[in-house]
Amino acid sequence: MRALLLLSAAVLIGAAPPQKPKTPSEIVAQAPASVWRDIDPDDLLVMDLGSGGRVVIQLAPEFAPVHVANIRALAKGSWWTGSTIYRVQDNYVVQWGNNEGKKPLPTGVVAKPPAEYHRALKGLTVRPLGYPDDYAPQAGYASGWPVGYDAKAGTANLTHCYGYVGVGRDLSPDTGTGGELYAVIGHAPRHLDRNIAVVGRVIEGIERMSSLPRGTEALGFYKSERQNVPISMVRLGSEIPAAERPAFQVMDTNSATFAAYLRGRANRNDDFFIRPAGGVDLCNAPVPIRRKPS
Amino acid sequence: MRALLLLSAAVLIGAAPPQKPKTPSEIVAQAPASVWRDIDPDDLLVMDLGSGGRVVIQLAPEFAPVHVANIRALAKGSWWTGSTIYRVQDNYVVQWGNNEGKKPLPTGVVAKPPAEYHRALKGLTVRPLGYPDDYAPQAGYASGWPVGYDAKAGTANLTHCYGYVGVGRDLSPDTGTGGELYAVIGHAPRHLDRNIAVVGRVIEGIERMSSLPRGTEALGFYKSERQNVPISMVRLGSEIPAAERPAFQVMDTNSATFAAYLRGRANRNDDFFIRPAGGVDLCNAPVPIRRKPS
Repeated sequence: MRALLLLSAAVLIGAAPPQKPKTPSEIVAQAPASVWRDIDPDDLLVMDLGSGGRVVIQLAPEFAPVHVANIRALAKGSWWTGSTIYRVQDNYVVQWGNNEGKKPLPTGVVAKPPAEYHRALKGLTVRPLGYPDDYAPQAGYASGWPVGYDAKAGTANLTHCYGYVGVGRDLSPDTGTGGELYAVIGHAPRHLDRNIAVVGRVIEGIERMSSLPRGTEALGFYKSERQNVPISMVRLGSEIPAAERPAFQVMDTNSATFAAYLRGRANRNDDFFIRPAGGVDLCNAPVPIRRKPS
Repeated sequence: MRALLLLSAAVLIGAAPPQKPKTPSEIVAQAPASVWRDIDPDDLLVMDLGSGGRVVIQLAPEFAPVHVANIRALAKGSWWTGSTIYRVQDNYVVQWGNNEGKKPLPTGVVAKPPAEYHRALKGLTVRPLGYPDDYAPQAGYASGWPVGYDAKAGTANLTHCYGYVGVGRDLSPDTGTGGELYAVIGHAPRHLDRNIAVVGRVIEGIERMSSLPRGTEALGFYKSERQNVPISMVRLGSEIPAAERPAFQVMDTNSATFAAYLRGRANRNDDFFIRPAGGVDLCNAPVPIRRKPS
């Protein structure tokens, strides 16, 4: 059995010579504690599936404040209890939350949020990706998130990378309440950027969604409601007793460590690679996230 | 239930006004017969899983002739019978074919093929993508395939887009025989381009691989051999009796229809979109492929 495509060949070859640059995985594993930022428990959406599996989403209030406030209110109102995952389209999205029309919206949910498809660039400290982007004038990272941005227009937007979570909506001017969400499970559908409110990303358990059976109807909807995947409970991290609450950290994208990681992703240097690309696209250099060490 | 993220809003709104440009899906659905090219049955690798599901791969002899010749010889020698899918790594690859060391290579298989990681640009008619690429000086399409290329160096390579199939190898100078293969099931890992022989793409049944349970060991290997997914039979299309043989066609990437499709992918214009991107990346404009109409 060939152990190909190793993320780090270090396991194969033992200790690397000291002059050798670290691989991206090594940079992340050896990052100093100072570059890790705790994720606020109010920014964690913890989704327990009927099967017992758990999916954890980090919310992005800096980019879609009204939609994120809605999602928090929906979670606190136990709105998703009894809802399901009802759409799984290969190389595209998993979608859940079919409670609209069945259950009244909890108090505090804004029925028609503004179109939070981009925000002001001002107030963000952006680290440029350093390579061209096909969907925005520039691309980079800000506040621990990948962004497309337009320095001339003064706007920035979250991007549809793998695992990123957006708000289902009908045709414009509808923007969606946040009650129906989807996560990307394929090649980044970046054409959706700036057309939908991106509200966060799956930071644990994406494989519980991406490995679900694909729906056989148009757009990946399940044919029968019996195929729907039950969601037993969705809570904010802050609603979970501290002792049981999962805790995560995200790497500071303005740190020198992140800069080294990004360089490493663009110039793979472990023994498997014979030709480093000398470039990388935004969604192929995901922001490192980890469980907070206890 | 919100019918969001429609590939074509035409189903919702009925007939579009005549002056409206066609969506990419409409362009493909209405493409004239003259733009479709039959795929040679010798270029089809038909893989039947133990579960009864089928995965069909189109081989790319123009790009990796020795590896493809090996794969044909392995198929004719029933080499994969009794092998398995033994690795499923989320947002990365599915890998199969663990027969090496168990079964002698059939006659005609070259044990150490050359490094077919790129080919001469000469002989290819390339349609440029028209947007920047982060992994090659230029990107485009040639002979029905997405390619990175370097006009100065005179080279072109197949790219690791979703569903693309590469040859597992050990550390260089090993290039792999073709006996162990992988398919991409996540965001395009383009950093592997020009480091591995890409030999084709899954053209039907990728969802049978992408929805498999993820392996829990490092790099997505299954923990126990009992989790491996049995492969019952792998044949060339040409080995299957004509009446039962699946037949496919690929769109001519030099056709005006493909050019219109590519423009449409870069400028989504159905009613769902409020801001077309004005750009697209190579792996987000996949070459249209269809079952040959009977």
